Amino acid sequence: MCVAPGGQLLWQGSDHRVILADEPDFPGFCRVVWTGHVREMSDLPPADAVRLMATVLVVERVVRQQLAPDKINLASLGNVVPHLHWHVIPRWVDDSRFPDPVWAAPRRPAPPREIDRTALAAALRAALDGCAGSA
Amino acid sequence: MCVAPGGQLLWQGSDHRVILADEPDFPGFCRVVWTGHVREMSDLPPADAVRLMATVLVVERVVRQQLAPDKINLASLGNVVPHLHWHVIPRWVDDSRFPDPVWAAPRRPAPPREIDRTALAAALRAALDGCAGSA
Repeated sequence: MCVAPGGQLLWQGSDHRVILADEPDFPGFCRVVWTGHVREMSDLPPADAVRLMATVLVVERVVRQQLAPDKINLASLGNVVPHLHWHVIPRWVDDSRFPDPVWAAPRRPAPPREIDRTALAAALRAALDGCAGSA
Repeated sequence: MCVAPGGQLLWQGSDHRVILADEPDFPGFCRVVWTGHVREMSDLPPADAVRLMATVLVVERVVRQQLAPDKINLASLGNVVPHLHWHVIPRWVDDSRFPDPVWAAPRRPAPPREIDRTALAAALRAALDGCAGSA
């Protein structure tokens, strides 16, 4: 996560990036990854935390607009990889774990659900380029 | 969650509150609950989202200072209760689920760990009263 994109790079800012995670059960699962070696949100200077969170919320908005999920899940855990990153996860009531968190055991097979990665990436770039998060 | 505190009330602001969750396996587990009926962070006016997140990060800082956990987990899921709230969860490497998320199956019994609820509440109130999040 420190050096590799960790998925399909959707947007690269000066100090954080947005990737489309390689999670076949969860189409549209995005991660917002801080570039520097930081463990916790409260280790960031406050202005950086605000900018990172602004990007997380832009990703949430764009994912909702593009994919119309039933719910959004946001999380920053980092127990396995203690390098600051956010999960922005669109959830559908028929997905493999709903209403459990994505880290729970599956309740059912994941239904087929195709997303338009090109449109998602374009909408994200349009929303993030020039916004506060990219400074 | 809309009407009941949902745990020990640690701090009450004008439009959100902080509670100490009743989670015996996870001492110090706090929730930051938005008072209004809102599903997603991106449903809040941006200024409110910034204030709510400021409170979440104050709680993270105070929990780290008071309890010195090995890691902090932040999450806003709301699949079961789609009423906007944040989990701020101190994690220890010997807790019942580490390094899994708290929603996973237990790996081991929860070790005894006493926290000073009075000191935590006092530190939270001192940090939050008068800060941006309480406006």
